[in-house]
Amino acid sequence: MSEISIKPYVHHAQYYETDQMSIIHHSNYIRWMEEARLDFMSQCGVPYKELEEMGIIIPVLSVSCEYRSMVHFDDDVIIHVKVVRYSGIKMNLEYTFTNAATGELTTTGTSSHCFLNRDYRPISLKKDYADIDNRFRKMLAL
Amino acid sequence: MSEISIKPYVHHAQYYETDQMSIIHHSNYIRWMEEARLDFMSQCGVPYKELEEMGIIIPVLSVSCEYRSMVHFDDDVIIHVKVVRYSGIKMNLEYTFTNAATGELTTTGTSSHCFLNRDYRPISLKKDYADIDNRFRKMLAL
Amino acid sequence: MSEISIKPYVHHAQYYETDQMSIIHHSNYIRWMEEARLDFMSQCGVPYKELEEMGIIIPVLSVSCEYRSMVHFDDDVIIHVKVVRYSGIKMNLEYTFTNAATGELTTTGTSSHCFLNRDYRPISLKKDYADIDNRFRKMLAL
Amino acid sequence: MSEISIKPYVHHAQYYETDQMSIIHHSNYIRWMEEARLDFMSQCGVPYKELEEMGIIIPVLSVSCEYRSMVHFDDDVIIHVKVVRYSGIKMNLEYTFTNAATGELTTTGTSSHCFLNRDYRPISLKKDYADIDNRFRKMLAL
Repeated sequence: MSEISIKPYVHHAQYYETDQMSIIHHSNYIRWMEEARLDFMSQCGVPYKELEEMGIIIPVLSVSCEYRSMVHFDDDVIIHVKVVRYSGIKMNLEYTFTNAATGELTTTGTSSHCFLNRDYRPISLKKDYADIDNRFRKMLAL
Repeated sequence: MSEISIKPYVHHAQYYETDQMSIIHHSNYIRWMEEARLDFMSQCGVPYKELEEMGIIIPVLSVSCEYRSMVHFDDDVIIHVKVVRYSGIKMNLEYTFTNAATGELTTTGTSSHCFLNRDYRPISLKKDYADIDNRFRKMLAL
Repeated sequence: MSEISIKPYVHHAQYYETDQMSIIHHSNYIRWMEEARLDFMSQCGVPYKELEEMGIIIPVLSVSCEYRSMVHFDDDVIIHVKVVRYSGIKMNLEYTFTNAATGELTTTGTSSHCFLNRDYRPISLKKDYADIDNRFRKMLAL
Repeated sequence: MSEISIKPYVHHAQYYETDQMSIIHHSNYIRWMEEARLDFMSQCGVPYKELEEMGIIIPVLSVSCEYRSMVHFDDDVIIHVKVVRYSGIKMNLEYTFTNAATGELTTTGTSSHCFLNRDYRPISLKKDYADIDNRFRKMLAL
């Protein structure tokens, strides 16, 4: 059986993401975590767009971000995503950001999520969407 | 009968809106035009939130913006909104941005809009929402 | 001697801050924390703009945010800022977000900071800027 | 002599760029124009980062954008950039946005620019930076 091989996400730091400290504004990393998370989910066979079309919404319950070194305009940043906990009801992810040119670890982050239906009520993927649940479970091993 | 007296909108330029040129990034003005437009509409008795709840969506068909002088972090910018054309089917607005401290005209802008229903199909406010249409018409005189 | 009386910061949730989940996108809260933090510092007699002009930069070392209930377009959100730790070298803040209409606690957050000079080297406000240091120390009591 | 062959820029529409109309918020297109413009300049041998390091700043004097059809989350948008006027002192660009999946023209835009030195004073690339000026001139033929 072929395993899923995940390609890490690369974000090219944009000029409009800088601030007058001449670095990338810290709020953008939260957005890059979303970019990397959705790319990761697509690669794992659960594209977020399709989930929403099925009526599954995955809001953010919490985020955290630790800024170790600055990222500048025009830097390529490699973002690794890891699902560290998944229960069918909640999901926790961890992120590491590496400068593509230097290999330096610039940032780490976390996010936690639950699953809602179209009426914004909590659902259990395990109970209601066994096939989707199964794909999320496999992410734990990646 | 009392006329509507419009209070101009004031935006306080935020740090996260700066870029490494040490000025406000030009894309933010498009957002400030929206802030000022929705504030203006609220003052005119057609709060956008209520319009959306009634099923009226007002997308942007076009925008333009001319940057005359730079706006910096911590500046207060006064934005005047003027409805220059309204047909019941389409609407055109003009914006002027003034530095509150210096009185300098920093920016001018325009936006044009149509009206859609929940299925994203064009509607005529004149035909379908006479009362709302009437309030928009009154904006032309302000 | 009169004490400083801090007016809590109010952010009016903008349309451009919503996402297609029809709530405010979670990344914006990190920006609102910055808005509230800079407003708080201004009220405490250390406006960030002046600090930067003196050559003091205050980057973000880490942020966290916990989303308890959703914020929607047009909501007014009251943000309380509290300095929970200040050493002259580092500073930790806590934030609570309350829905102005309902009084509901919607969000909590934290941020941590250090102080840098124009060459992005760490400085001690205690050693290098005694007067500024004194004003930051007073924030702990607010 | 080998000619420059320009690869059109592709932007993947992000979830955080949507609004509660369930489309990409119109302000983001101004940012995508910047992304495409800087990518185009890099491909033409004048990466903006290097220009800034040389002391050349290229602010935006005006932008315009016409929204023909909606762009949605997860869409790939192909952006073509064309320099339509370049005088050594000013530069005008035009942009076309095409939906990569359907080939549909979704958006057109323009931007105009001047050239400043580190003191934000206008400069003539023709007079002061003949080599850079030459590279910009060649863009007119692309």
